[in-house]
Amino acid sequence: MDNGEPRAWIVTVGNEILIGRIVNTNAAWLAEKLTFMGFRVERIIVVPDEPEHIAEELRRALGRARVVITTGGLGPTYDDRTLEGVAKSVSRSLKLNPEALEMVRRFYERRGLELTEDRMKMALLPEGAEAIPNPVGAAPGSWLEVEGTIIVSLPGVPAEMKAMFEQHVEPRLAREAPRKALHECGVIVRGVPESGIAPYLKRIARKYPHAYIKSHPKGHETDRPILDIRVLASAPTREEARSLAERIIAEIEETANGLGGQVEREPC
Amino acid sequence: MDNGEPRAWIVTVGNEILIGRIVNTNAAWLAEKLTFMGFRVERIIVVPDEPEHIAEELRRALGRARVVITTGGLGPTYDDRTLEGVAKSVSRSLKLNPEALEMVRRFYERRGLELTEDRMKMALLPEGAEAIPNPVGAAPGSWLEVEGTIIVSLPGVPAEMKAMFEQHVEPRLAREAPRKALHECGVIVRGVPESGIAPYLKRIARKYPHAYIKSHPKGHETDRPILDIRVLASAPTREEARSLAERIIAEIEETANGLGGQVEREPC
Repeated sequence: MDNGEPRAWIVTVGNEILIGRIVNTNAAWLAEKLTFMGFRVERIIVVPDEPEHIAEELRRALGRARVVITTGGLGPTYDDRTLEGVAKSVSRSLKLNPEALEMVRRFYERRGLELTEDRMKMALLPEGAEAIPNPVGAAPGSWLEVEGTIIVSLPGVPAEMKAMFEQHVEPRLAREAPRKALHECGVIVRGVPESGIAPYLKRIARKYPHAYIKSHPKGHETDRPILDIRVLASAPTREEARSLAERIIAEIEETANGLGGQVEREPC
Repeated sequence: MDNGEPRAWIVTVGNEILIGRIVNTNAAWLAEKLTFMGFRVERIIVVPDEPEHIAEELRRALGRARVVITTGGLGPTYDDRTLEGVAKSVSRSLKLNPEALEMVRRFYERRGLELTEDRMKMALLPEGAEAIPNPVGAAPGSWLEVEGTIIVSLPGVPAEMKAMFEQHVEPRLAREAPRKALHECGVIVRGVPESGIAPYLKRIARKYPHAYIKSHPKGHETDRPILDIRVLASAPTREEARSLAERIIAEIEETANGLGGQVEREPC
């Protein structure tokens, strides 16, 4: 499992997950992204929204993980204390970040709302951190590099977290991950309903963490089912990515044939 | 948040979660159970299925958490190494446990299958551990108490994990948690479709971690919707449990009225 990939930790801040009222889908989404980018996700840790707990886990990650992503606890309320925890873990203090303040100011201005003290609190970042723009909500994120570890803090609202990660974090982190080549192949399967092949595709997907497998139903689900199945594989070289995609396509073909489907391969 | 409740940690063993191919629903289920029983869940940690990583996290929990539940990694294959990690964390070795062996033997005997070496491996428990019967699958669980911390290890298959927890772990752990009284109240809501009130119920449920709120649709979803909403509240005393249930019922009533429903309270 350990192939010398840079390590990533995910720290989810949220009492709601610790009381079992929310399933940690943010962590699953980030874990898939980071794995696909070439990181080895070594820990997913859920902590109470208290700075001491957040700092305890971040300190363990320093110098060990190349990147730590925290989610949650960036909002304007009294129990949003993630950045206090981040600052504490690296023995720095929180400071009003001018860029973050400008982001928050603009967010509320556009909505005709005042910049209250609660709202300004969202512009307090750990000393030395950069603000990450939030295209969806009010709270900026934080990017801080210390002792060779990048600590990225994103909000807990999935739509905000995902937009910020994809627009501002993923492109920068890609430079830290081993260079990856991508290759995509597709296959059309006729005569097998999506629900029939889904469990097999799931099993194949689990076997190959460095590939995305998606199926798109085209015909009628049970009457004349047609499925367009796409495989996007990532590997250190173009050749390896292509051969990985081909191997997966071959497995899908075998499965579909076994289920009585007709398979039409695209040139790969 | 910290009211002196005994602390619980959940350690999920599974590369499949770390690569983002599976969402950690086991942890959410356990977290809700433990919270409701009166524990404070302080950590949910996902680790790779390697004994060193498992032991590292368990060592941190020893003497700090009253109970740690691990899930996953109890099966017959080479990468099922959770109990190695448990043993390592307390500097003990794995030993063939006679009760566990009997459970495994009977499981395969009933299916007319042989007791192979791989299968016998599932009867290797940390020295001093008790076997937990598995009413669904082959792998027994492990119950080990060291330094005031109970380490319970359950399989990762949700049906097995849940059955074992409810039948064999919950009753014993209940003794470790603060005594709790339960009180149930109900309310019938007419004229509001379940999908309309669901987001409000969810918000109320999050506000009250020590209560279960369940709604059962009785009439037709959109035409003549009737909902039976049940609230089960837990608190240190009978009186507090009743007053908590009543407070929640009152909130639900207000919400339902606001949505134009007719509310009929049961005596509570």
